[in-house]
Amino acid sequence: MPDIRRSIILRRRPTGEPRREDFQIVEEPVPEPGPGEVLTRTIWLSIDPYMRGRMSDRKSYAEPVAIGGVMTGETVGEVLASNDPGFSPGDVVVGSRGWQTHSISRAGALARIERPGAPLGAYLGVLGMPGTTAYSGMKDIGQPKAGETVVVSAASGGVGSVAGQLAKRAGARVVGIAGGADKCVWVQETLGFDDCVDHRVGNLDLALADACPNGIDVYFENVGGAVQEAVFARLNPFARVVMCGMIAQYNEAEFPPGPNLGFVVAKRVRIEGMIVSDKPERFAEWRALAAPWVADGSLRHRETIVDGLDAAPEALRQVLRGGNFGKMLVRVGREPAGA
Amino acid sequence: MPDIRRSIILRRRPTGEPRREDFQIVEEPVPEPGPGEVLTRTIWLSIDPYMRGRMSDRKSYAEPVAIGGVMTGETVGEVLASNDPGFSPGDVVVGSRGWQTHSISRAGALARIERPGAPLGAYLGVLGMPGTTAYSGMKDIGQPKAGETVVVSAASGGVGSVAGQLAKRAGARVVGIAGGADKCVWVQETLGFDDCVDHRVGNLDLALADACPNGIDVYFENVGGAVQEAVFARLNPFARVVMCGMIAQYNEAEFPPGPNLGFVVAKRVRIEGMIVSDKPERFAEWRALAAPWVADGSLRHRETIVDGLDAAPEALRQVLRGGNFGKMLVRVGREPAGA
Repeated sequence: MPDIRRSIILRRRPTGEPRREDFQIVEEPVPEPGPGEVLTRTIWLSIDPYMRGRMSDRKSYAEPVAIGGVMTGETVGEVLASNDPGFSPGDVVVGSRGWQTHSISRAGALARIERPGAPLGAYLGVLGMPGTTAYSGMKDIGQPKAGETVVVSAASGGVGSVAGQLAKRAGARVVGIAGGADKCVWVQETLGFDDCVDHRVGNLDLALADACPNGIDVYFENVGGAVQEAVFARLNPFARVVMCGMIAQYNEAEFPPGPNLGFVVAKRVRIEGMIVSDKPERFAEWRALAAPWVADGSLRHRETIVDGLDAAPEALRQVLRGGNFGKMLVRVGREPAGA
Repeated sequence: MPDIRRSIILRRRPTGEPRREDFQIVEEPVPEPGPGEVLTRTIWLSIDPYMRGRMSDRKSYAEPVAIGGVMTGETVGEVLASNDPGFSPGDVVVGSRGWQTHSISRAGALARIERPGAPLGAYLGVLGMPGTTAYSGMKDIGQPKAGETVVVSAASGGVGSVAGQLAKRAGARVVGIAGGADKCVWVQETLGFDDCVDHRVGNLDLALADACPNGIDVYFENVGGAVQEAVFARLNPFARVVMCGMIAQYNEAEFPPGPNLGFVVAKRVRIEGMIVSDKPERFAEWRALAAPWVADGSLRHRETIVDGLDAAPEALRQVLRGGNFGKMLVRVGREPAGA
């Protein structure tokens, strides 16, 4: 066990795309857990688009990271020391911690991962926050039905890949939107979407019209911008739009105007925003539902893995550019034997 | 009984505000009802904002009126002749007919008004389509709760006046938005809203902030444009927006851009469109619920009445400009004795 903890803190609020200089690495002795606390070493750190929002002081659903504060994020870690009877050294746990090699947590903020089970990284992706986001959005808002057409943007990402597979399970025609031919091939051939439109080439409106001859009944929105505009133009009466994210504008200081909402009346569209943490019960529900699907290979997932805590800032930049392919994970420490 | 029927037909599709020359009056002999049909003479014709949409060939939820076709609209009329056992001469009925002095209807499209009852015009306003629209929008989407803040635009209109009174009954703080001091006084003093903002004077953002110190939980949208922008900026987390209409742009050929939808995610807002005819069962439900409130005076309403079928085009222009005060009605024929 090293006796130094490395953490990445927010040095200053970025303008536009986050830069290396917006972050700072700090080192200090590994702390001791206090009463009721648990010390973990980080194995996996999840990198997700929402983290860009936490770097701004723009008003949002969660408090921003303070200047000088540790960047927040979901992690899988191994317990090194515990002052809580619920955890013992060697336990592998998942929780919302930060960009650091070692963390102190209240015991109640951690969940033990039973082993053997799914690969540990899956608890940050397909079985974790992104998977639960897709599940909650489809269950509570999208509600796809057999025969309907469902469009999912950022279709190869951690959320989109699960959202589309859930819609397929519901019997819908599922069309992905992704950036790049390799992603589109994977979305269609591996995830089993009926079609996938590459928004980086050709005419998006025409491609979408082609892929959705019967219009669009459900849109799972992760992107915003031109993709949103193209999809909205093809929504059917009584369409549902799951507003999960608009990554296209996360680096923007000023937001561009959006759609005129006349169509919402004329087509009786429902546009609804969601944040996964509003319904915490969905996490356990989803894990119970999806773990067998991950185990039997019927729910597919994919990760982009980068090595070492220091790679986290560049990993976030990549995610915001769509440069990842599947769920972005940082390998911060080795997996325990047998994981 | 005159033997001539006068009808107002759509002569051409208007550009911008409808003009006199977009309409044409035609005269012809009063027709005879066929098998299963009923002949009525029109007493009251309702003038409503949606009619502007029917004059355009822009894609919408309903077919446009054909060039040369009679303008559609809700009416109260008296049965003159019936080839259906359900109706007899002298019956007073409500139905969706048109801008004409006499109409032929299938019996199934008419509902008899039991008399004595509410004033006949009420069946086109507070108890009719506008009232039912307010009821359905609040019941199915807005769902105001005690202590919440509800904002209603076009607050003195046929829909808005009922929407706000329903929110008051639910125990909410209700703030109207209307155009003109006289309307605002009526909305507060007669309808009992907690506050009313005149969007024609001063700074709308500041006035709204003043009237809604705790933000906005439900917005009943009838207007669009600058009013929508000001209200959206003050929506609370988990706010519901009933998208009923956007009258500010009904005369526009090109729609302006709308709001950037980032706030929908961050605040988990639900924005949902509605058309009253999607849930026809709400009409009878509402009439049963609200008729006693109209009778005991606890549900207030107000009409602007113009005389004679020929006044209908100008009445629609007025409605689109916000020149009416309360529900706009055209008195096409005399009320039967005792009505």
